[in-house]
Amino acid sequence: MSDVYEPPSAFALHLGYELTEWRENFARYEMPIAAFIRNRQGLPHGGVHATLLDSAMGISGCWTGDSDRRIMTLTLSLNVQYIGRAGGTRLIVEARKTGGGRNTFFAEGAVTDDTGMLVAKGTGVFRYRPG
Amino acid sequence: MSDVYEPPSAFALHLGYELTEWRENFARYEMPIAAFIRNRQGLPHGGVHATLLDSAMGISGCWTGDSDRRIMTLTLSLNVQYIGRAGGTRLIVEARKTGGGRNTFFAEGAVTDDTGMLVAKGTGVFRYRPG
Amino acid sequence: MSDVYEPPSAFALHLGYELTEWRENFARYEMPIAAFIRNRQGLPHGGVHATLLDSAMGISGCWTGDSDRRIMTLTLSLNVQYIGRAGGTRLIVEARKTGGGRNTFFAEGAVTDDTGMLVAKGTGVFRYRPG
Amino acid sequence: MSDVYEPPSAFALHLGYELTEWRENFARYEMPIAAFIRNRQGLPHGGVHATLLDSAMGISGCWTGDSDRRIMTLTLSLNVQYIGRAGGTRLIVEARKTGGGRNTFFAEGAVTDDTGMLVAKGTGVFRYRPG
Repeated sequence: MSDVYEPPSAFALHLGYELTEWRENFARYEMPIAAFIRNRQGLPHGGVHATLLDSAMGISGCWTGDSDRRIMTLTLSLNVQYIGRAGGTRLIVEARKTGGGRNTFFAEGAVTDDTGMLVAKGTGVFRYRPG
Repeated sequence: MSDVYEPPSAFALHLGYELTEWRENFARYEMPIAAFIRNRQGLPHGGVHATLLDSAMGISGCWTGDSDRRIMTLTLSLNVQYIGRAGGTRLIVEARKTGGGRNTFFAEGAVTDDTGMLVAKGTGVFRYRPG
Repeated sequence: MSDVYEPPSAFALHLGYELTEWRENFARYEMPIAAFIRNRQGLPHGGVHATLLDSAMGISGCWTGDSDRRIMTLTLSLNVQYIGRAGGTRLIVEARKTGGGRNTFFAEGAVTDDTGMLVAKGTGVFRYRPG
Repeated sequence: MSDVYEPPSAFALHLGYELTEWRENFARYEMPIAAFIRNRQGLPHGGVHATLLDSAMGISGCWTGDSDRRIMTLTLSLNVQYIGRAGGTRLIVEARKTGGGRNTFFAEGAVTDDTGMLVAKGTGVFRYRPG
């Protein structure tokens, strides 16, 4: 990961996911599959994959290369497809900005586990927050 | 809430949300806005609303009226629109099944806060899990 | 329908759908189920329902009450759920704006046929076009 | 294109799009940008891109390699992101199946124009029709 630092959100700390790569139009987070993320069937909750995709897609459009110049976004819409079942011990999400302009942007991403299984794919529309 | 009991998932316990109403084709969860759900802008993380919508829409199609006869679902796809900014102290999600058949069903839901502000709306497609 | 007139698009003329109600935050279109809208299974093509939802949701945010003051929008994202099978002779779509601000807005809508069957539901995010 | 033949739907004939490549888990359609597909701003209507994506994603999961053995699908949900503005004279959609099982499958696709501009991306969930 680059030396541009982005402090984790309270929610990222609570769930245990971390930004492990960040560059222009790209971001990756990783997360251990802890017992506390399980749904009533014993699998990682769908909300976990949605959270990882929302975080990674959002920040993929916020790279500035400068820790002191932070850009914030608001999610306008999020779409998640639940394609496979997570195994292994970690979830990895990678996302990239796919288009947009000064005010809004589009991104897409994928969640895999550390065995390489495709777990979920997502798309989103985001808005840059003024100021 | 009815006396049909559904034990909370590990993830629901970790985030602090609870099923407060459940009947045929309908479910409601409520959740305190704790400090640990905040994103880097200090607002409830978008993944929280996605989690609440996924949980409530999914279980809206699982009512049997009998605690011993449980139905499980898998989320196929989830769509969330982030419409307003949460204030107040609690989030409330209400969801209803809107259609479907024996194998798959459709649902929609809305997240509001306890001041009545509309925060997010969602739709989803779910699959009943055999067995 | 009100006496505020909005000329149909070329595509609306080609498919045969017409604006039959329009007011602040609301729009309705209707469309005969012609033979030329059928898919390879003999049902109205999913793209027809998407078209009706996109048109009705988009224009639901464009009411000004004045035929000479037109507002244009761009669709940012569109989500459609295909819930039922159309019968009857006409499709009806009703849509409403559900939120948003000066630059972007959210809408939702439903397509039914003239027997009252729910065929599809949709949500969308739209952007006002400057100028 | 392969010599496996799939007759166009009535709607495909009415809009003028044709299957130009089809193989296991992949499909491409092409379509001239005719005057009759324009919206009230003079651009191809968003419903056109939705139609192309729905058609291509759906049929990407229906390849059998045998014109006499046809598989049919129903679209459960469709998501479209409108990323760029179409120019040129033709629209091209390419789609691939990304996962799924015996009953339902997932697909994604992209619409470009013949200048190479990315116009729209989409995802969908589909159900195989029994029989």
